[in-house]
Amino acid sequence: VTEPQLIALDWGTSNLRASLLGTGGRVLAQRAGASGIMAVPERRFAEALLAVVGDWLDEHKLPLIASGMIGSRQGWREAPYLACPASRADAAHHVVTVPVRDGAVLHIAPGLQCTGADGEADVMRGEETQVWGAGLAAGTCCVLPGTHSKWAWTGAGDTIERFSTYMTGELYALLTQHSILGRLMRFEGPDAAAFERGAALGLAAPADVMHTIFAARTAGLMERLPAASLPDFLSGILIGAEIGSATRNAKPARLTLLGEAALCGRYAAALKLAGIAAELAGADATTRGQWQIAGDAGLVKDQET
Amino acid sequence: VTEPQLIALDWGTSNLRASLLGTGGRVLAQRAGASGIMAVPERRFAEALLAVVGDWLDEHKLPLIASGMIGSRQGWREAPYLACPASRADAAHHVVTVPVRDGAVLHIAPGLQCTGADGEADVMRGEETQVWGAGLAAGTCCVLPGTHSKWAWTGAGDTIERFSTYMTGELYALLTQHSILGRLMRFEGPDAAAFERGAALGLAAPADVMHTIFAARTAGLMERLPAASLPDFLSGILIGAEIGSATRNAKPARLTLLGEAALCGRYAAALKLAGIAAELAGADATTRGQWQIAGDAGLVKDQET
Repeated sequence: VTEPQLIALDWGTSNLRASLLGTGGRVLAQRAGASGIMAVPERRFAEALLAVVGDWLDEHKLPLIASGMIGSRQGWREAPYLACPASRADAAHHVVTVPVRDGAVLHIAPGLQCTGADGEADVMRGEETQVWGAGLAAGTCCVLPGTHSKWAWTGAGDTIERFSTYMTGELYALLTQHSILGRLMRFEGPDAAAFERGAALGLAAPADVMHTIFAARTAGLMERLPAASLPDFLSGILIGAEIGSATRNAKPARLTLLGEAALCGRYAAALKLAGIAAELAGADATTRGQWQIAGDAGLVKDQET
Repeated sequence: VTEPQLIALDWGTSNLRASLLGTGGRVLAQRAGASGIMAVPERRFAEALLAVVGDWLDEHKLPLIASGMIGSRQGWREAPYLACPASRADAAHHVVTVPVRDGAVLHIAPGLQCTGADGEADVMRGEETQVWGAGLAAGTCCVLPGTHSKWAWTGAGDTIERFSTYMTGELYALLTQHSILGRLMRFEGPDAAAFERGAALGLAAPADVMHTIFAARTAGLMERLPAASLPDFLSGILIGAEIGSATRNAKPARLTLLGEAALCGRYAAALKLAGIAAELAGADATTRGQWQIAGDAGLVKDQET
């Protein structure tokens, strides 16, 4: 029987996912709720946290670690961004703490920042923990699809060398929900052929994406695609343009996808069109990364073998 | 004294602008209202039209011509898109009619369609009339900034050879009003320096625009730009990326801007950064185009000199 050793929190903008971890970071129990930082009223973070894991704390006196937007300025306590390249040990060294209740302290892992070739800053919070948890070799390119899709490159040791954010998921949501493109759309099941047609368009000319997305209107107007195909056509254009942009200067032969399975499947299909092989990382990258940072920070004995 | 000869309607999605035109297309009176096609209840277009120009029709028995979205499937009567290259005479030949009331008929000019290098369709409605009205030389590149910005190239005679739509204005509205980028923004007066900084970024790498727009968040987070500068920084990125995209295969030395003065001013500033000279077309391009199409269609005697 494994004794619980750590409560690990993936605490983002919209959701809070809590994991009870045993020796080696094994997941003993998991709970999720809609207590993302934007949903916590009047900054009552302790209350929101105890509502989810209070009984775990009552039963076992455990350390707590969190990654994600909970460490942002809008979160519970700010854990300033570490500059890239940054290692897992750097992150563990810069964990910040906040009291939860008598005897219980939450440790919050910092996010990362880096400066792009264009001189502008980029930031991530939470994804760095997933990348470390995935245990990638140096020189790997990995992609974490989502609202704000991240492309990260690993360096020597377990450093994250640099990364780049694409607003792909948020653009898709905005364009389907609020733009003229949504007016002709019907939302049914996925349409792989329409997705691939869009992805080919996006890949062929990422520089034209603000033009190409208009084809998701004209293809409907001209009855070249049925209304139910237009959402995936648009999704393909955006994901294709993201991949085309991120790989236009140096195209990796393969990369690692980290994230939700269905979305990773879309990316894998578009990457295949681009001639890039995609490998899916294990689904437990987040809790593995949290366990390892907690180990580096001395919160748990990492007896992982 | 000039007798009124034509009622010309610029009837779009959001607005209806009516002009009373005299000999040579001279503007005698103008009225504008929020009776765009999306604001007309239960397709009561005749009622909406008469509310704006009923007294003009009572007083003078005049022909009526309209351009814009009123000729779309969601409008009063569909005037099918003409394929490019298309001349003004082609448009006049394909005007459709709809009865307004006894003795009064509305003539609706068709929009244009063309097929891009990527094989996808593109469409415009209303802008073609402005381009013709601007009286451009063959081989001119002209830009009509807006919600859906249009780049059009003129051909021999007065044909419009081809064109390309960019969703720039709509993306700006979506990102400022509904995305995470808007959360850090404050909306005050224009900030030309922030706009130019954004435009330089957008121009330098249009292929990266889905990444670069995230700088409108990080520049705020990192306090590189004040909150009040972020809207124009984002506007610059988007307009810069549009120009970079539209001119990446063939950069014109000069082009013509057609549209609202303040927005054309932004485009002129970004075009200057790209080394492209911009000329502003006359503000009366729409009514001139409508007058000329009405002349070609035999609705008025075009005595313009």
